Amino acid sequence: MSAAPGRFIALEGGEGVGKSTQGRMLAEALRARGLEVVTTREPGGTAGAEAIRTMLLTTDGEGWGARAEALLFAAARADHVEKLIRPAIARGAWVICDRFVDSSRAYQGGGGGLSDTDVLDLHRIGSEGLLPDLTVLLTVRPEVSAQRLAMRDGGAGDRIESRGAPYHARVAEAFRAFAAQDPDRFAVIDAEGSPADVHSRIMARIAGFLT
Amino acid sequence: MSAAPGRFIALEGGEGVGKSTQGRMLAEALRARGLEVVTTREPGGTAGAEAIRTMLLTTDGEGWGARAEALLFAAARADHVEKLIRPAIARGAWVICDRFVDSSRAYQGGGGGLSDTDVLDLHRIGSEGLLPDLTVLLTVRPEVSAQRLAMRDGGAGDRIESRGAPYHARVAEAFRAFAAQDPDRFAVIDAEGSPADVHSRIMARIAGFLT
Repeated sequence: MSAAPGRFIALEGGEGVGKSTQGRMLAEALRARGLEVVTTREPGGTAGAEAIRTMLLTTDGEGWGARAEALLFAAARADHVEKLIRPAIARGAWVICDRFVDSSRAYQGGGGGLSDTDVLDLHRIGSEGLLPDLTVLLTVRPEVSAQRLAMRDGGAGDRIESRGAPYHARVAEAFRAFAAQDPDRFAVIDAEGSPADVHSRIMARIAGFLT
Repeated sequence: MSAAPGRFIALEGGEGVGKSTQGRMLAEALRARGLEVVTTREPGGTAGAEAIRTMLLTTDGEGWGARAEALLFAAARADHVEKLIRPAIARGAWVICDRFVDSSRAYQGGGGGLSDTDVLDLHRIGSEGLLPDLTVLLTVRPEVSAQRLAMRDGGAGDRIESRGAPYHARVAEAFRAFAAQDPDRFAVIDAEGSPADVHSRIMARIAGFLT
């Protein structure tokens, strides 16, 4: 057990910005300093949340409406927060989470008839409004994101990845707006260049939590 | 198609008060008058909501926390309202639903750390706050309910049925309080006596919608 307090870091951003790569590199760097690190992702992270993830991403014919979808994401997050994230922070671990509530705000809010207030209300009810100590927002120019996505799985992509460029541009804009509203919680990181360069930029912003 | 407007009737009350029997009898009586009737139940009623119902009622080892559970019930209801209840009402059908939002208020609210306001917020976000035209609350003395439950499946019961008498008494009290707060929407019906007697009491309260 570490004497220092646990920390909760979320990685956010659109598809293809390098969240998983940077999450792995960050976890390795923190472990090299002797810290306990828990890496996880949303939707998912616990058995219950993964079951909900499966329901969400592999819909049958009709699919889910925007409201049911937002409630399912919030339910998965509630399970994840209660059973994995809060206990890990409580014992002094660092939790690195690939996507958290700001993804719900960017993807479910605005677009599908739900307001940002609705999404935040769901988070308050489901997870008592838990927010990361730091939210690392990875940003790239739209053409770079499109290029990276095209290289994945021959460009097939899942249900969300396969939506059009204007959709992804709106999501990127929403993330930037959240960061502007809450500059203390967000670190906006330029995610172009080599993974090692991006990692260095992230470590520079994490430094304050490591002293 | 009926020229009269569709109606939405919910049947509520604790376990063993006769909701399903009375729902069937009410549906038959309305169909005998030439009305289109859709009978449904919660949690469930649509493919998506039934999938959520299965997740809710057959939990693995750890089970769901109160917050995740409330969100899952609200997600199932959102799907049910969007895909089945609203379209049926819109085409002029009568919808008879075994349990609706007042069951969430009685079972998830209060008990598990969620306030009634939280449960109603989830319903506002998930289902735009849709309420039945009439909520038939079936009430019996606790000893009668216990007796009826003991006769089901040799008394084995499911996860909720098998909770103790004080739990069921609190639920019954919660239902009575909701009815007292909103007497225009609720019809509190004495559910003791023969099914035919109870059915007559319900029909007397439905009469106003049939003229």
